[in-house]
Amino acid sequence: MVNITFQKSACPGGECIGTVPAGSTILQAAIAAGVHLQSACGGKGTCGKCRVILPPEYRSEPLPEEKKFLSDEQIRNGIVLACKRHVQEDMAITLIQQKDVYDRKTQLEKADRRHALSPYVHKYDVNVSTPTITDQRSDWERLMAELPESHSIFRFNRRVAAKLPGILRGVSSHVTAVTAGDEILAVETGDTRDRFYGLAIDIGTTTIVVYLMNLNDGKVVARGALTNPQQGAGADVLSRIAYTADHPGGLSQLQSLVVEGLNHIISDLCREKEINSEQIYQAVVVGNTTMSHLFLGIDPTYLATAPFIPGFRQTVSLKASELGLNILGDGIVTILPIVAGYVGSDTIGVMLSGQIDTLKGIHLLLDIGTNGEMVLVGKGRILTCSTAAGPTFEGAGVKYGMRAADGAIERVRISDDVELGVIGKETEKVRGICGSGLIEAVSEMFRVGIITSEGRMITAESDIAKLSPALQERIIADTGGREFVLAWKDQTVSGENVTITQKDIRGLQLAKGAILAGIRVLMAHLEVSPEDIEMIHLAGAFGNYISRESALGIGLLPQVPLAKIQSIGNAAGNGAQMALLSTIEMAKANQYALVTEHIELSADKLFQDEFLEALALG
Amino acid sequence: MVNITFQKSACPGGECIGTVPAGSTILQAAIAAGVHLQSACGGKGTCGKCRVILPPEYRSEPLPEEKKFLSDEQIRNGIVLACKRHVQEDMAITLIQQKDVYDRKTQLEKADRRHALSPYVHKYDVNVSTPTITDQRSDWERLMAELPESHSIFRFNRRVAAKLPGILRGVSSHVTAVTAGDEILAVETGDTRDRFYGLAIDIGTTTIVVYLMNLNDGKVVARGALTNPQQGAGADVLSRIAYTADHPGGLSQLQSLVVEGLNHIISDLCREKEINSEQIYQAVVVGNTTMSHLFLGIDPTYLATAPFIPGFRQTVSLKASELGLNILGDGIVTILPIVAGYVGSDTIGVMLSGQIDTLKGIHLLLDIGTNGEMVLVGKGRILTCSTAAGPTFEGAGVKYGMRAADGAIERVRISDDVELGVIGKETEKVRGICGSGLIEAVSEMFRVGIITSEGRMITAESDIAKLSPALQERIIADTGGREFVLAWKDQTVSGENVTITQKDIRGLQLAKGAILAGIRVLMAHLEVSPEDIEMIHLAGAFGNYISRESALGIGLLPQVPLAKIQSIGNAAGNGAQMALLSTIEMAKANQYALVTEHIELSADKLFQDEFLEALALG
Repeated sequence: MVNITFQKSACPGGECIGTVPAGSTILQAAIAAGVHLQSACGGKGTCGKCRVILPPEYRSEPLPEEKKFLSDEQIRNGIVLACKRHVQEDMAITLIQQKDVYDRKTQLEKADRRHALSPYVHKYDVNVSTPTITDQRSDWERLMAELPESHSIFRFNRRVAAKLPGILRGVSSHVTAVTAGDEILAVETGDTRDRFYGLAIDIGTTTIVVYLMNLNDGKVVARGALTNPQQGAGADVLSRIAYTADHPGGLSQLQSLVVEGLNHIISDLCREKEINSEQIYQAVVVGNTTMSHLFLGIDPTYLATAPFIPGFRQTVSLKASELGLNILGDGIVTILPIVAGYVGSDTIGVMLSGQIDTLKGIHLLLDIGTNGEMVLVGKGRILTCSTAAGPTFEGAGVKYGMRAADGAIERVRISDDVELGVIGKETEKVRGICGSGLIEAVSEMFRVGIITSEGRMITAESDIAKLSPALQERIIADTGGREFVLAWKDQTVSGENVTITQKDIRGLQLAKGAILAGIRVLMAHLEVSPEDIEMIHLAGAFGNYISRESALGIGLLPQVPLAKIQSIGNAAGNGAQMALLSTIEMAKANQYALVTEHIELSADKLFQDEFLEALALG
Repeated sequence: MVNITFQKSACPGGECIGTVPAGSTILQAAIAAGVHLQSACGGKGTCGKCRVILPPEYRSEPLPEEKKFLSDEQIRNGIVLACKRHVQEDMAITLIQQKDVYDRKTQLEKADRRHALSPYVHKYDVNVSTPTITDQRSDWERLMAELPESHSIFRFNRRVAAKLPGILRGVSSHVTAVTAGDEILAVETGDTRDRFYGLAIDIGTTTIVVYLMNLNDGKVVARGALTNPQQGAGADVLSRIAYTADHPGGLSQLQSLVVEGLNHIISDLCREKEINSEQIYQAVVVGNTTMSHLFLGIDPTYLATAPFIPGFRQTVSLKASELGLNILGDGIVTILPIVAGYVGSDTIGVMLSGQIDTLKGIHLLLDIGTNGEMVLVGKGRILTCSTAAGPTFEGAGVKYGMRAADGAIERVRISDDVELGVIGKETEKVRGICGSGLIEAVSEMFRVGIITSEGRMITAESDIAKLSPALQERIIADTGGREFVLAWKDQTVSGENVTITQKDIRGLQLAKGAILAGIRVLMAHLEVSPEDIEMIHLAGAFGNYISRESALGIGLLPQVPLAKIQSIGNAAGNGAQMALLSTIEMAKANQYALVTEHIELSADKLFQDEFLEALALG
């Protein structure tokens, strides 16, 4: 076995080491270490994305695949493809642009999509003719006459027309017209084409993320995030829906909260980058179905009860001023379409980001949070379903559970004793355990025999006796039953032991059982089996940080080879970016929403059976 | 000569008597009396509109034309056609629905347009299906599915969608959808098709008028008017434009004023008729170009100076909420199109009301106020121009001038002495002289030789000596020059003589000269002469009250027979009603705006010459 060390920043929990048999690839070591490397082809050497930097002493001639994807300069700098380089001894690998997984992803994908940069919004540099006594056309008409003929029938915009007479008689009649479809969004003095911005927004139940994009080059200018200010009305969507039903004015209150939160981020980003918020012309928004309803102020009541019917599903475009979003008042806010009550535009974003139209074979896309949304693509069909995974994966409802923040256990290895990876500084004391840590812990406990496949912590003395003394010591009895100590009290901030309880395990079983059963139902509908799956794509922060081995270890995913599992980053937000930057991607979003076959699991006979079966670990 | 008395209410100045040669028609007597009778055909007996009631003692067998247009019951009740009945002796004629000329006109035209009632707004009574676990369409989609297929692609409306889930799960899922084009304006609980209203609005510089219309039958439910609250910023459009330039925030202030004024009327009308203002779904607005700009808040600055370019000209449709008009927030406010800086949508309204597409031969339409707008229709063309008539016709800038209100002299007959008709009660004392009174006075003074055709009041003793002693006495000298006394001080409220001054006559000459010159320019462009004119249509209140004889007498109009002059009432407001009630009329409005040839008189070489020539009286 060799130990491959990846630079620490890639792994918020500390030093990331992948321990693999000598002769493994660097990609395999990265997967073992839980380090996210782009690998669209799954290690076949055909996508050229899994780039890393070799230490100088190990550099050698480039391989044929590397010559194909890398420039001479990149090769001189020691860049190689991780899937093609085999490791025989310990070494330290440097990652490329690994600091911010979001930025990196966007940077990488920018190259792919540069040729397709075609935002819905346009800027036209025009010289409007001067009126005369014999040319009695109005100011609006003379402006229209200078715009491209293919767009000549624009709708009237009162706010633009109101100021147009003054603008045209200002310094010069050289102006920039901002258009979107058949609308004129603004007319600006002079040539302002270099200031051309948009937003991609991901409204999560927990976190809202805003990407400020330059529409001229498709790059992310800046990124900002905030805890969703609706949190006070409850952590999950059902609590938020109940809040709107129980509080008069609650719906508009929750709407205001999210808009204010977004405005706060926008204001920060604009100040930081010295951008005029009036020169942000479009925002493309994704979120789950409830978040879309709350953002638009649409009654979400009937999402909470069967048959879980949304108020709307189609793509919605509105003026920013109607929602109070602080970009150009006439700017367009586009909310991507919804598939069903629990499969929202965030899942459409995942489909875009996963470029499902280019995939060959059977692919599974998973976005796991409080809710798990699954997409199974193949045989010319797109199937979706969703299951309420409960808050377990986000660390809630777990005795020592917490969000993935400093002090959270997120890596667990069990051999003779327990080794922990804790988020934050190396000297950080333990505060609790986050979702991915819980999965690792249970996976490892199951692997070494502390938990049975039914999910019971072992109790028979004969079973316990098989464990190492250090592990035996960690099985303790508390008031609520048996617990397994991950961190002794001298290691923790609270001074209490941080443990995994039998109840925590049951919670995890229910959550992972629901996900796996949902996946199996989709597979049954498409008539495919695990070996047919080409790739499992894990979206979202959870997908970034979960250890693929552990996910397989507890049986959260169908049993596929490790190399067939990859993280696709914040796919929902990335999909919003793609739709913002390209009308083609926007059209795909609409198409996906139309053709997707949604399977409502509460109405699916198979689901109950699959769920009971899927509760078992492994 | 016989005296035909028309009922007093038709003539605000008191008893209306038409003195005509025995054997004249009642229509001729009505014209002589200044009483407005509908007469689309100009007295040929082919339109059947000039209906009056004969006194019982003069009733006889119906004429063939009367049998054609009148029911048996109408004939039994003494109704005859005024153009076909000749009078041999004095009698009193009763008018039909003469109380409110607006209501009457609308009533009469309703019959014409009933078959064409096709408002832009529709109401559909629909039963929306109940969702199930297997029918996962959103509430919006299930509603759409019930609407007529030809309208199936409606745009999303956030405000409607917001409440839709609750409405569909209320008492029943039986609802009424209100649509306009591709928009859903509202969804109402139950079948509300019987409550279906719209507004026709005429925003005048002086007066704003609102007609509340029932869109189910095309009838005027109620009418309200108010002095334009922008008056404080000046009486004419140039003052208002200057106000917006001189006062920061002045434009939005003037916009608010007119909207508040309209809301005041709407609120009164709705209260009076017990109508929910949310069930008013569209408003069609006409006004002069400046009024349209101020109503929409569009910078009017450049309307004030050559080349007088408007900010926009096309038909504009907006949400009521954007303007703050208190009808349904998603209701449509449509401003009819503009021809030029001084030929606005009110003139388009006049074209609609004059049904210019149905006219044969050459027709002149005139709308005279502070500004005079003229339309010459014929040879397949529509020509327009406008001239600043000044405030003379509205009684301003005249020494004893006043608006057409109680106490205003509005009829003047001069024989051996002066006979006056004063607006209001018979016992009313004189307060001043209104526009139509001024025209009558000058026309009569010219006819009897007190004024020369150059507009000079006679000064030579030999000329004065030819007048009756009573008239001689009325020619007095005041500080400003000679004056002619219309009302002696014992007849007036102020106790001062009310007179016509030389300056008043000069003002009237300039005003009428501009109008006549404009008409002549149009005629020259179309290459027609006065004898080619089939009919002169006088629009607006001025057109209602001006004596056609006097208008011809002073040479305000080309010399045509009296029968070829008719009043068409508040044609601008009536045109707004027509566009509200019929998408066909709305389409005509757009078409007229596109094809009309506007002649900007300040750029027209002919105008100067014609103007100098047109100053002469007679």
